[in-house]
Amino acid sequence: MSSSFGSVFKVSTWGESHGVGVGVVIDGCPAGVPLTTEQIQKELDRRRPGQSDIVTPRNEEDRVEILSGVLDGVTLGTPIALSVRNKDHQSSAYNEMQHTYRPSHADYCYDAKYGLRAWAGGGRASARETIGRVAAGAVAKAMAQALYPQLQVIGWVQQVHTVFCHVQPAEVDPAVVESNIVRAADPESAEDMSVVIREARAKGDSVGGVVACTVRNCPVGLGDPVFDKLEATLAHAMLSIPACKGFEIGSGFGAPALRGSEHNDPYYMDGERVRTRTNNSGGVQGGISNGEDINIRLAFKPTATLMVPQNTVNDEHVEVQLRGKGRHDPCVLPRAVPVVEAMAWLVVADHILRQRSARI
Amino acid sequence: MSSSFGSVFKVSTWGESHGVGVGVVIDGCPAGVPLTTEQIQKELDRRRPGQSDIVTPRNEEDRVEILSGVLDGVTLGTPIALSVRNKDHQSSAYNEMQHTYRPSHADYCYDAKYGLRAWAGGGRASARETIGRVAAGAVAKAMAQALYPQLQVIGWVQQVHTVFCHVQPAEVDPAVVESNIVRAADPESAEDMSVVIREARAKGDSVGGVVACTVRNCPVGLGDPVFDKLEATLAHAMLSIPACKGFEIGSGFGAPALRGSEHNDPYYMDGERVRTRTNNSGGVQGGISNGEDINIRLAFKPTATLMVPQNTVNDEHVEVQLRGKGRHDPCVLPRAVPVVEAMAWLVVADHILRQRSARI
Amino acid sequence: MSSSFGSVFKVSTWGESHGVGVGVVIDGCPAGVPLTTEQIQKELDRRRPGQSDIVTPRNEEDRVEILSGVLDGVTLGTPIALSVRNKDHQSSAYNEMQHTYRPSHADYCYDAKYGLRAWAGGGRASARETIGRVAAGAVAKAMAQALYPQLQVIGWVQQVHTVFCHVQPAEVDPAVVESNIVRAADPESAEDMSVVIREARAKGDSVGGVVACTVRNCPVGLGDPVFDKLEATLAHAMLSIPACKGFEIGSGFGAPALRGSEHNDPYYMDGERVRTRTNNSGGVQGGISNGEDINIRLAFKPTATLMVPQNTVNDEHVEVQLRGKGRHDPCVLPRAVPVVEAMAWLVVADHILRQRSARI
Amino acid sequence: MSSSFGSVFKVSTWGESHGVGVGVVIDGCPAGVPLTTEQIQKELDRRRPGQSDIVTPRNEEDRVEILSGVLDGVTLGTPIALSVRNKDHQSSAYNEMQHTYRPSHADYCYDAKYGLRAWAGGGRASARETIGRVAAGAVAKAMAQALYPQLQVIGWVQQVHTVFCHVQPAEVDPAVVESNIVRAADPESAEDMSVVIREARAKGDSVGGVVACTVRNCPVGLGDPVFDKLEATLAHAMLSIPACKGFEIGSGFGAPALRGSEHNDPYYMDGERVRTRTNNSGGVQGGISNGEDINIRLAFKPTATLMVPQNTVNDEHVEVQLRGKGRHDPCVLPRAVPVVEAMAWLVVADHILRQRSARI
Repeated sequence: MSSSFGSVFKVSTWGESHGVGVGVVIDGCPAGVPLTTEQIQKELDRRRPGQSDIVTPRNEEDRVEILSGVLDGVTLGTPIALSVRNKDHQSSAYNEMQHTYRPSHADYCYDAKYGLRAWAGGGRASARETIGRVAAGAVAKAMAQALYPQLQVIGWVQQVHTVFCHVQPAEVDPAVVESNIVRAADPESAEDMSVVIREARAKGDSVGGVVACTVRNCPVGLGDPVFDKLEATLAHAMLSIPACKGFEIGSGFGAPALRGSEHNDPYYMDGERVRTRTNNSGGVQGGISNGEDINIRLAFKPTATLMVPQNTVNDEHVEVQLRGKGRHDPCVLPRAVPVVEAMAWLVVADHILRQRSARI
Repeated sequence: MSSSFGSVFKVSTWGESHGVGVGVVIDGCPAGVPLTTEQIQKELDRRRPGQSDIVTPRNEEDRVEILSGVLDGVTLGTPIALSVRNKDHQSSAYNEMQHTYRPSHADYCYDAKYGLRAWAGGGRASARETIGRVAAGAVAKAMAQALYPQLQVIGWVQQVHTVFCHVQPAEVDPAVVESNIVRAADPESAEDMSVVIREARAKGDSVGGVVACTVRNCPVGLGDPVFDKLEATLAHAMLSIPACKGFEIGSGFGAPALRGSEHNDPYYMDGERVRTRTNNSGGVQGGISNGEDINIRLAFKPTATLMVPQNTVNDEHVEVQLRGKGRHDPCVLPRAVPVVEAMAWLVVADHILRQRSARI
Repeated sequence: MSSSFGSVFKVSTWGESHGVGVGVVIDGCPAGVPLTTEQIQKELDRRRPGQSDIVTPRNEEDRVEILSGVLDGVTLGTPIALSVRNKDHQSSAYNEMQHTYRPSHADYCYDAKYGLRAWAGGGRASARETIGRVAAGAVAKAMAQALYPQLQVIGWVQQVHTVFCHVQPAEVDPAVVESNIVRAADPESAEDMSVVIREARAKGDSVGGVVACTVRNCPVGLGDPVFDKLEATLAHAMLSIPACKGFEIGSGFGAPALRGSEHNDPYYMDGERVRTRTNNSGGVQGGISNGEDINIRLAFKPTATLMVPQNTVNDEHVEVQLRGKGRHDPCVLPRAVPVVEAMAWLVVADHILRQRSARI
Repeated sequence: MSSSFGSVFKVSTWGESHGVGVGVVIDGCPAGVPLTTEQIQKELDRRRPGQSDIVTPRNEEDRVEILSGVLDGVTLGTPIALSVRNKDHQSSAYNEMQHTYRPSHADYCYDAKYGLRAWAGGGRASARETIGRVAAGAVAKAMAQALYPQLQVIGWVQQVHTVFCHVQPAEVDPAVVESNIVRAADPESAEDMSVVIREARAKGDSVGGVVACTVRNCPVGLGDPVFDKLEATLAHAMLSIPACKGFEIGSGFGAPALRGSEHNDPYYMDGERVRTRTNNSGGVQGGISNGEDINIRLAFKPTATLMVPQNTVNDEHVEVQLRGKGRHDPCVLPRAVPVVEAMAWLVVADHILRQRSARI
């Protein structure tokens, strides 16, 4: 009742970190979308572990297989099943955690909720679960761009610990983002951020940060008032990503500092097009896209698994100490970028299809 | 496809600001919940216009009528329909806005999406729509407290423009919140905030702020990984409230400033109960409640409708100036508090019922 | 979780027989559909009690009020709330049934399921609940015909007890159906059927029958394999009508008598149009409409409430006798026709909107 | 938007007949259900092709793999993904059908709906799609029987063409059903039916029939009025099975022949238990199970693919003749039995979980 997302373009992910594999079924993708394995693999490669020295060394190829719903490179309108086999899982590193709860991790809550859990590798609560999201996001992107070729979703790391990247959303170049291992929007910030990440790792510690994301050339009219406002479904999507603690759209938590006369975005005509002079709204008004860039920001906490001893309790409710093992990212931000983008694509693709029923 | 919320405890709101009325149907409330009109009316009275000199003077009694689903003060398990008639709408104040788009309001986007809109009073995009939410929230509260009598949801105004209220979530006293017209958590902040609000109103301007909300004595185990994590459904709920621009849980956007060793919440045993020493998690780990207080914060932008002239365009795409008329809140925060609480109750009630299917 | 129907064009009905009223909220009707109160009232008048001497004499005007979602005779794309107040309920007639279960009625099962029930007038299990369906069906019809003006749904009474009406579906004239109090497809059958109904009523007994329904000029392509095949959603819709015990499409239970070579419908070209020589398929193949008439048949059991003594038990589980009171239809068929049509419209309207997402 | 079924116990099937494979994701199965691959394989073996000389000779092992959601033989509460690889597909047999529409098959309608189709082996419209249903049904059965060990679902072939099996539902012995290749309820009928099937096959023709199904020891209270009545969701489930043309519950189309005084099922006390003397209701009253056997019947048309020449049209809308190739069942009934049972288990399992929210 919980691993599904979307209203018309619906995805259902499955899989545990140390199980047979992970994957997703997409039910509701229209027929006629050009789609290849390569398009999906490309996005998975961006979230793959082992890309650089600042992320987990778990060595997974993460090869995706299209099991259904596509024939001769075109979607059939039937469910698209995508699967990735797990290969390099080393469950022995988790033996100690079988009965001991990692602080700020999902272990205790899974036990409390379900009465049992797949303890190895974090099971369903592992970041490995996001493979299904990224694979589905690639399909959503293919569908959305088939209809709106100029539509773009661009994520980048805006902050790591106390290092900030100050490039404005409208100035972010995705080629620059992909050219550095942190996925920052400029090389200097990337360098500073990677230093902070390496320092944290050296100490067995971890750091968090902020991922920003912008949607460019979004059609006007997306978003379904009142409960499925565009920003509400985006917030739902983003807060479902492991470690995400906050969401902003447009002015966000900076909004209160402005008076209404400063915050309002005045309309003007840009040729035939209604536009706004400023974009405190973040591209959404009344829950509906207005055609300006959709700008969001997401706070991520530092990785919970640490290589230093921590106080905790075990499943017999005895207080114990735990020192993490296994292979972990000292900072999830670089690999979170493709996940954030995937979730944004899922939201946008769903709203594009929902919009088809807005008018007679 | 958009005015419904919830998975098991489902609500569907309806109504335009200047139409016949507003209301809600609740489909999925279990049988056997004690419920009276007074319980619902009490919450509606808290969001009613005209409560003080710092909110809109629109004079609405907002009397709720239970149309179905309740017999002899107990729910029947059948849909509960609640309705409030509109009385004091003055559509003439909106004549000018029939064809002119208010900046940062929903007017333009509704036209772009639907091809038409109920222009008077903001139609469906009016804050009046939240009556259905508050009414449904009262039912959710009745249901949840019937099962967990200690369960509490408490909202308060934590910030108005640049005035902050520094009471810690665990220290907030709901009686204090209800004792001042701003709904701040201490009388001094309330006084300062009301000054700021009156100043804004005097200039025809508006201010925003932050509403905080805490859920106390929440049962362990609520929240459905992976997409319907407790924080994800809370974020969805809150960002669907008009004027909300940001959401935080626990450490929120403050998380990146902490290292993992500082951010992690160590477990300890408090008698029979597993607890955490700190609560950066905000009561949720792995998307599931851990029994600590659930602490969230929501940014609200300043009211879009201003009594000063603004540049905009009309529905013939001509650039014009507009000065707002009608009756508006110079600051939505005081009346947003019961709406935030209602949405929190809806989320918690839904997850309480969903949790019934988590185990065999 | 149960009073909602539809995937994109979603309806939620509410109301008890002897409560304040009954109604429906439609969430998902596109903007721009011409819609008046009269269109809805006209359909409600067709299911209204007291139309003739062969139906219940309960005297209800059943005046519908549009509470939201429509402005100046056009839908807004927002939820459409429709409400009908109950007037002529005589709960005293039900005093005896407060604690005694009517055989083959819902009384016992409601108690077993919910632990309580609205005993007067059958509560939610009353046929009065179908008012919300008929009102919503009128909106679905308005929407569907705005897009496909030739689209028609025609229901009629094909059988009452052992009296059959042999007019072929393609020959049924809706004007003839509406011209007789039974809603049979020819006046002679109508006369014979009304005799049977009056005889049953005279004895305090009741009779059942078959309602047939045909959808003409249905666009090709409606229906969503695999679980929401057009016939599957039609069957769901029809079996949800009180007293319905069976559903057939096309050849139905007659299919086994034919060999494949007899049952298959050969394709041919009718000008530009692909058509079939026969229509054993009932207008649906592979779960998708093929453009031929959609022909379905529905079995209705005789009314459960009888004016003769019956053996039963009470809510203290003591065996007792019960003789029905209150006002009841000795045969539900004539008033079931508009309900069947309404459900068919709801299904067709929903699939029309769903079809908008079938192709890129 | 169409390959998903269920409200709490949700399944999403995927796969084309001649694609990589077929499968299902179950989202909503509670944690703690004992579940092995063998339990699932056993049911798949019952629907497997090549079991006898009266079904298709396609040779598929149909080995199921559990990809997620189960650890150490117990469900985790997370999605359960099940997959079966296709092996013995011979697409060349379908070359002629790539552009020619088989009469009464889904070919034309898929093209009309989606603009393209997986022509080989019927693609998504193949009966092979039911593998996902049967696999999911085995999980539903495991869950339901973990809670109600006496709960049973038994299907059998009641009619093939004009040969009837007259064993009463309450007398059917599942061991007898499984002991004959037709899955009739007595050996004599089975023999007569198999003669009819072999005759049809010898002529390149096909026959249909009726599958009956009974649910024994069903808990009282299942079914969600008003739209998700138990019979409504059963009808939805059954009419979604390929080739199903009709559904009856209890008296079904026989109901009209009885007067109310004959049709009503009088209540009596059987010890502590409220029971009915007769069971024309088929175990359901007011949409809710009453504890009596749930008896349903389903009409299946003769297989559409024939080995004799038939008139049809091709995808260039030219009238042509077609003689079927490929391997087909001359009668789907024997293999439909496990599919019918699986759908019944899915419905019952879902309602068992839904019932958990019926009361406070």
